[in-house]
Amino acid sequence: MGRIYTDELVLHVGHRVRLLGWLHQFRELGGVSFVLIRDARGIAQVVVRSEANRGALRGLLLESAIDVEAEVREHEQAPGGFELVEPRIAAVTVAVEPPPFDLFRPGIRAQLPTVLDHAALSLRHPSRRASLTLSAASVAGFRSGLHREGFTEVFTPKTVGTSTESGANVFVVDYFGRTAYLAQSPQLYKQLLVGVFERVFEVGPVFRAEPHDTTRHLSEYVSLDAEMGFIVDESDVIAVLRSTIAAMTAAAAEEGTAVDLTEARIPDVRAEFPVLHFADAQALVANATGEDLSKELDLTPAHERWLGKWAVREHGSEFLVVTGFPLAKRPFYTHPDPNRPGFTRGFDLLFRGLEIVTGGQRLHRYEDYVAALTSRGETVDGLELYLEAFKHGMPPHGGFAIGLERWVAQLIGAANVREVRAFPRDVSRLLP
Amino acid sequence: MGRIYTDELVLHVGHRVRLLGWLHQFRELGGVSFVLIRDARGIAQVVVRSEANRGALRGLLLESAIDVEAEVREHEQAPGGFELVEPRIAAVTVAVEPPPFDLFRPGIRAQLPTVLDHAALSLRHPSRRASLTLSAASVAGFRSGLHREGFTEVFTPKTVGTSTESGANVFVVDYFGRTAYLAQSPQLYKQLLVGVFERVFEVGPVFRAEPHDTTRHLSEYVSLDAEMGFIVDESDVIAVLRSTIAAMTAAAAEEGTAVDLTEARIPDVRAEFPVLHFADAQALVANATGEDLSKELDLTPAHERWLGKWAVREHGSEFLVVTGFPLAKRPFYTHPDPNRPGFTRGFDLLFRGLEIVTGGQRLHRYEDYVAALTSRGETVDGLELYLEAFKHGMPPHGGFAIGLERWVAQLIGAANVREVRAFPRDVSRLLP
Repeated sequence: MGRIYTDELVLHVGHRVRLLGWLHQFRELGGVSFVLIRDARGIAQVVVRSEANRGALRGLLLESAIDVEAEVREHEQAPGGFELVEPRIAAVTVAVEPPPFDLFRPGIRAQLPTVLDHAALSLRHPSRRASLTLSAASVAGFRSGLHREGFTEVFTPKTVGTSTESGANVFVVDYFGRTAYLAQSPQLYKQLLVGVFERVFEVGPVFRAEPHDTTRHLSEYVSLDAEMGFIVDESDVIAVLRSTIAAMTAAAAEEGTAVDLTEARIPDVRAEFPVLHFADAQALVANATGEDLSKELDLTPAHERWLGKWAVREHGSEFLVVTGFPLAKRPFYTHPDPNRPGFTRGFDLLFRGLEIVTGGQRLHRYEDYVAALTSRGETVDGLELYLEAFKHGMPPHGGFAIGLERWVAQLIGAANVREVRAFPRDVSRLLP
Repeated sequence: MGRIYTDELVLHVGHRVRLLGWLHQFRELGGVSFVLIRDARGIAQVVVRSEANRGALRGLLLESAIDVEAEVREHEQAPGGFELVEPRIAAVTVAVEPPPFDLFRPGIRAQLPTVLDHAALSLRHPSRRASLTLSAASVAGFRSGLHREGFTEVFTPKTVGTSTESGANVFVVDYFGRTAYLAQSPQLYKQLLVGVFERVFEVGPVFRAEPHDTTRHLSEYVSLDAEMGFIVDESDVIAVLRSTIAAMTAAAAEEGTAVDLTEARIPDVRAEFPVLHFADAQALVANATGEDLSKELDLTPAHERWLGKWAVREHGSEFLVVTGFPLAKRPFYTHPDPNRPGFTRGFDLLFRGLEIVTGGQRLHRYEDYVAALTSRGETVDGLELYLEAFKHGMPPHGGFAIGLERWVAQLIGAANVREVRAFPRDVSRLLP
């Protein structure tokens, strides 16, 4: 008999079907036992009355893989509105140990380190799995949104000869006896590929040797990168970012079950993101809090949270673009604002008070790169083969990078980005 | 005026349009000059008659970014069947050096190392760019094919605490003072995620510290991975591999311009791949060549080429699955063939005589992992947090990994995988 999935029972009422999945829960109530079988798409209840079946099940550990043949019956009180009766249940693979925590309860009753140590098991929990479903859907939305805008997908190397974002926080690799680095972003590569495809995107891992143990940082995360040429300024980039976020939101919203299980709040993506200049953002925060921010060149997490609330209050938006970040805190490739010395065309996108995107216009002329590096006391040494492209007609361009785990964490209200990543990496975690 | 792309000229005959792109070629014939403008989608010819315009163009280096406003006219002899007349041409970004090689000729007249040193420029060549277009299309086909089969996309870590494929050929990372490795494949992670989603896929970089400098090996490549649960044996995996390759082929075939530019030969993907057991494959080769292969545990590249020709001759297929590879040459997680001691349920897919896929059924019981490791003189040390999942009801499962660059190289007949990768990495190349 061909197998069906738990979300297809509605099509088979009154007929015998076959389900494959995991023994999610086993309960006995008087003369009847109830089995919950969990498959890739949901959960179904199996009613077991025969004593032989019940005896066999009593010896079977939860999470055993099982094969169930039974008749489908409508039953309002059962999960999903159907139950399976007159079952024949066979073990496919018998579990040899009980799970380290219950997977059938609404949440996992264990501390985060335990949950992460046993990631292969905890990810089987429906709500944990659902956060990965939203992650996959968001990435699919990212790609389809950018395809519609004429972007081409590219794949750039993660083992690189030079570090771009900053000298610190970079992982060192022994590359056949030479020193290589793990790419902190595909930044220069996606810029070079603007010269090839004009509009490119990449979905891939980036690596930050982040020594701080915070709820917002991972040492390896998925970066959703885009870069586009022939722009006027960063506002062209922000417009594409908005349509991309709208596509990601729409794709996540379509995963109804995952949205329910994670209690995700799907944001309203308006026709335009509100945009606030860094200096104005600082003035607002300083005014409200009485802090002296005149020497601050960046926003703190607390400032971001304050601005997130401000955007909801003033603009009814859970998104806020802060643009014009100070030059001193942005990387060398950032395009300065010609009208405001000391500031740039670099921006961040805050979502519910957390920075989830960094972007901006980049330098596009070779001589500007040389000047920018020189003014920072650096040289083009080691960057020659990258910067060469800028001698050959690179148009004005810019782009952005969305942190996938931060996006999903904010979507579902997770307190820690580690909760929405399959096997997170941080300063102390390298396993599993 | 809003810009259009070179492939949209047909919609604007008789009207003035605006194009943005690169100065691809400049020729003078008597009293007329011809400019080719290259944008993300193609090339268009601009006819320049005004002496002022012609003079300005003479001083402009090729590959400068340009902005052209002109009237569209049908002209059979022009590239694409249209030309642009009465132009107003402005430089967006002036090139400050001539390109290191001509990009307007049918091929790049330079040696491969030079082409790769200047990758940012050489990738602008239409045929080189087209190979990356086919790469992007193939990946999109991989994903859409697997989505249709109920697979979920996952993202697994590339910095890992243990090496899985073999002790050698693994890159070492300084991970906050500890030793980490770059993932040689997402193998164990995708297996663990079968317990979560039943069917998963991943597109991501894998890293092999491959000391040999061959035309088939890169030290970093894009691996298209899939893994699925509740299989009977490896034939279920081969069936999904076939439909996946069919989806990749169809997606590549839709890129007509890129197919033409690369002279790609789109293969015919039949309803089934021919399957040959390793022992039978060896016997065929030994018979034909007179070689003594009785002690060989793997196929050489020459054997693969011979078998590729055999498959065309005997089955009219450019694809051939060789299954049942000897246990001694397959990794510890490979499922043995219970009916043929010494052989496994591991297979390779040859495409035009080159291995582009490795796959098979995996072990799914914890005790089988312990036994397999023990029989190889290894232990579960360092693998505990991975192997734990196999104590908890992992169903019979298997999967495959397609090497993206090998697939594209075979599709277009490239002699070297480095030609179809944006910024390749090998034992001696870490830049750009």
